[in-house]
Amino acid sequence: MTQHSYSVPQLNKEMGKQVSDYINNLTKPAGSLGRLEEVAILLAEMKNDAFPTVSPAGVLVFAADHGITDEGVSAYPKAVTEQMVRNFLNGGAAINVFSRQIGADLNIIDIGVAIDIDHPHLLKKKVRYGTANFLHEDAMSRKEAEKAIKIGYEQGLEMINNGAQCLILGEMGIGNTTASSAILTILSDKEVESVVGTGTGITQEVLQHKVHVIKQAIESRHPNPADPIDLISKIGGLEIAGMTGAMLAAASRRVPILVDGFICTIAALLASKISPNAADYMVVTHQSVEPGHQIAISLLRKKPILDLGLRLGEGSGAAVTYPIIQSATLMVKEMATFDSAGVSQKN
Amino acid sequence: MTQHSYSVPQLNKEMGKQVSDYINNLTKPAGSLGRLEEVAILLAEMKNDAFPTVSPAGVLVFAADHGITDEGVSAYPKAVTEQMVRNFLNGGAAINVFSRQIGADLNIIDIGVAIDIDHPHLLKKKVRYGTANFLHEDAMSRKEAEKAIKIGYEQGLEMINNGAQCLILGEMGIGNTTASSAILTILSDKEVESVVGTGTGITQEVLQHKVHVIKQAIESRHPNPADPIDLISKIGGLEIAGMTGAMLAAASRRVPILVDGFICTIAALLASKISPNAADYMVVTHQSVEPGHQIAISLLRKKPILDLGLRLGEGSGAAVTYPIIQSATLMVKEMATFDSAGVSQKN
Repeated sequence: MTQHSYSVPQLNKEMGKQVSDYINNLTKPAGSLGRLEEVAILLAEMKNDAFPTVSPAGVLVFAADHGITDEGVSAYPKAVTEQMVRNFLNGGAAINVFSRQIGADLNIIDIGVAIDIDHPHLLKKKVRYGTANFLHEDAMSRKEAEKAIKIGYEQGLEMINNGAQCLILGEMGIGNTTASSAILTILSDKEVESVVGTGTGITQEVLQHKVHVIKQAIESRHPNPADPIDLISKIGGLEIAGMTGAMLAAASRRVPILVDGFICTIAALLASKISPNAADYMVVTHQSVEPGHQIAISLLRKKPILDLGLRLGEGSGAAVTYPIIQSATLMVKEMATFDSAGVSQKN
Repeated sequence: MTQHSYSVPQLNKEMGKQVSDYINNLTKPAGSLGRLEEVAILLAEMKNDAFPTVSPAGVLVFAADHGITDEGVSAYPKAVTEQMVRNFLNGGAAINVFSRQIGADLNIIDIGVAIDIDHPHLLKKKVRYGTANFLHEDAMSRKEAEKAIKIGYEQGLEMINNGAQCLILGEMGIGNTTASSAILTILSDKEVESVVGTGTGITQEVLQHKVHVIKQAIESRHPNPADPIDLISKIGGLEIAGMTGAMLAAASRRVPILVDGFICTIAALLASKISPNAADYMVVTHQSVEPGHQIAISLLRKKPILDLGLRLGEGSGAAVTYPIIQSATLMVKEMATFDSAGVSQKN
């Protein structure tokens, strides 16, 4: 997989202008559907199509473990990664419920869970049995980081080839807010304190410890902020790299990317470091409670659609937002114009 | 129709507590689905059911004209009310598109359009041919106001009897932001300037004029803020009264009400004046751009779900929000618990 394969086409701004004019002729006061109109214009620019569809959505959930959990930075035991993968495979997690609601295909990919899981629906693409503890050593080799991105790219491409009209990326990996906060600290030049949150629900005491661990780890690893592969290999995680790869696949094929919460947005930042145009194909679906999320979103220069106090991950917030994205496309496709409906224009 | 018919049962707070405990056992960190969890608990309290459904939704759009348009307060000519009713009947308006998207039945009710419209799908319940110009005389008689509420109540009840599990109320009536701003001025004790906006898109000059007209009209009509029937009869409008009645029907039958934008929220305030418990059955779906909306929402003591810069009306914002309300119910119904999925709890 060469850098070339990740090349991303430019948005078609001319198409956006045409759709903007068309929306102003729909039977409603100009601008009265607010952000739905912005989304509709952006989707047209992405898809090079005045009447794009986002249906069906494809959901990819990448799961992997993190060696950093040895430091006691998480609210849940490491075993929960594997247990939740089984829950995904049995259809009982939030992302299963919301994927069914929106009629999306859902693929679960083991890209680095610490133990082997046997299930007919699991996509077994394990790069390694979890990352190494990045407080003491690099999370993975450079080659493994590149491999994880490539796997994500291939999985994204396959879902698109099977008909997905937009991609939702999700993750499962106990410890991955710690890795994400470390990456964001480096990319944002902010203090560790301002990018670290309670993740799935740690106490204030554990939070202090998490900050300390991240500070020490960054000092030891000192990854190069300009080199996304270096960031991934030194800090992790495998599921983050998988999401990054899938986003690059979507952007390269003009397929909209519905970005979920904190960890997913870190993957989005890494994708846009690898291929700067990739961010053009992203819609940040919601503002998470995790404090680093706002910082990550502003680095991407995006404005989230929802703010519902979500902090679950798995792609769940993106799936919940999907119907609103769909509303934007249906508005353009199905509403009458002033002319066609015989409705008078403004005084 | 006596006051008694509008009696609204209390929420079942005990059911809410049970559902809250149950949600804390679903396979996700406690609280991590934020407002979805709040909505799920509230719906259980409303419906007296731990696993309530909101599917299918029923949408009622009430249309009527306003005599105040003679004062030149609107961006669009008065004829647009009738033209948009035809657009609704032909399926080309935003509310048609979004109702189809969410699989909702949509009824269009002529409760006071200024001219007669003949169409097999139109529910003809005209109370009068538009309101009188409330700058110079009462918008309608007290009897007409009561009749409009009763019609709304009956239409709401019929939709519920036909299976609607939640109600979305919408309106069409050129001039109705003027009536709504006048009512809100009286209910909120705020300056007219702070509750008046550009409606469907008037200029700053027309806005000044609109403020002046409302001030004069309030002085002349001086309705009693404690008497919602007096407010409706002196200011209007017929479609606002219809929405108020439909909300009372929903609340009396424990059916959730998805409140749309500014005008709909004024109807919600009037409903809660008639029957204080009615507000317990309301979810304010979005924050409109119209400046009075925020004031009206805070009088209802609600927090909107979305903030997408919408200002269309018709019930469109409520319909766009509906899938999120549905996500909340599906979360409770379909997610596995820690026990059932064999997932470990917090450390």
